[in-house]
Amino acid sequence: MPVVDIADKLALFSDHWSPKVVARLNDYEIKLVKLKGEFVWHTHDDTDELFLVIAGHLTIQLRDGDVTLGPGQLYVVPRCVEHCPVTDGDVSAMLIEPAGVANTGSAGGERTATQDTTLLD
Amino acid sequence: MPVVDIADKLALFSDHWSPKVVARLNDYEIKLVKLKGEFVWHTHDDTDELFLVIAGHLTIQLRDGDVTLGPGQLYVVPRCVEHCPVTDGDVSAMLIEPAGVANTGSAGGERTATQDTTLLD
Repeated sequence: MPVVDIADKLALFSDHWSPKVVARLNDYEIKLVKLKGEFVWHTHDDTDELFLVIAGHLTIQLRDGDVTLGPGQLYVVPRCVEHCPVTDGDVSAMLIEPAGVANTGSAGGERTATQDTTLLD
Repeated sequence: MPVVDIADKLALFSDHWSPKVVARLNDYEIKLVKLKGEFVWHTHDDTDELFLVIAGHLTIQLRDGDVTLGPGQLYVVPRCVEHCPVTDGDVSAMLIEPAGVANTGSAGGERTATQDTTLLD
């Protein structure tokens, strides 16, 4: 298990809405992702999902009010809570959730990212 | 579930080696901790443990070589791997592990922190 330097890992990719696994913790995955624009409304029925913003500002739209995160701020979207991330520009974030969770949750569709479980290197 | 601002939470305490729970993710806890000096050698037999350094420099001593982390760097100590954190000064870090894990693992002893599962506020 190597040390993971978050900035170094973020420099390795530029695509948006496609989380990259950088570490594993038991059966959880630590992912980095770049976000820009609006995603799709979705839920994860079986798990909470942690967002930690590294750079930029991310709004997590929720049906009962939005949450906005800047660098060094984190939020856990509870399971079954419908949400839709949107940004005002480029955002880099860390996601933590159990392995195998699809980015679009129960919504599916064309924004569903391929799940590459190889550690980003 | 409120937004967690890591810097704001770190400003709420000053004791060392006593992790504070700031968020929950399923049955995992997201903790912040301040570290200074050397801890005790210990293992966690049932779980991996994630260290993400927020400020300062942390060395995780391992029996087969040390790992040093600066701000924005993370490392996962695998279950059953004996380790002993040590710092050269003040360190702030995030820990992620299942709820209920003792800071001293299987070593126990006087450095074992009281487990306060209330979210730091």
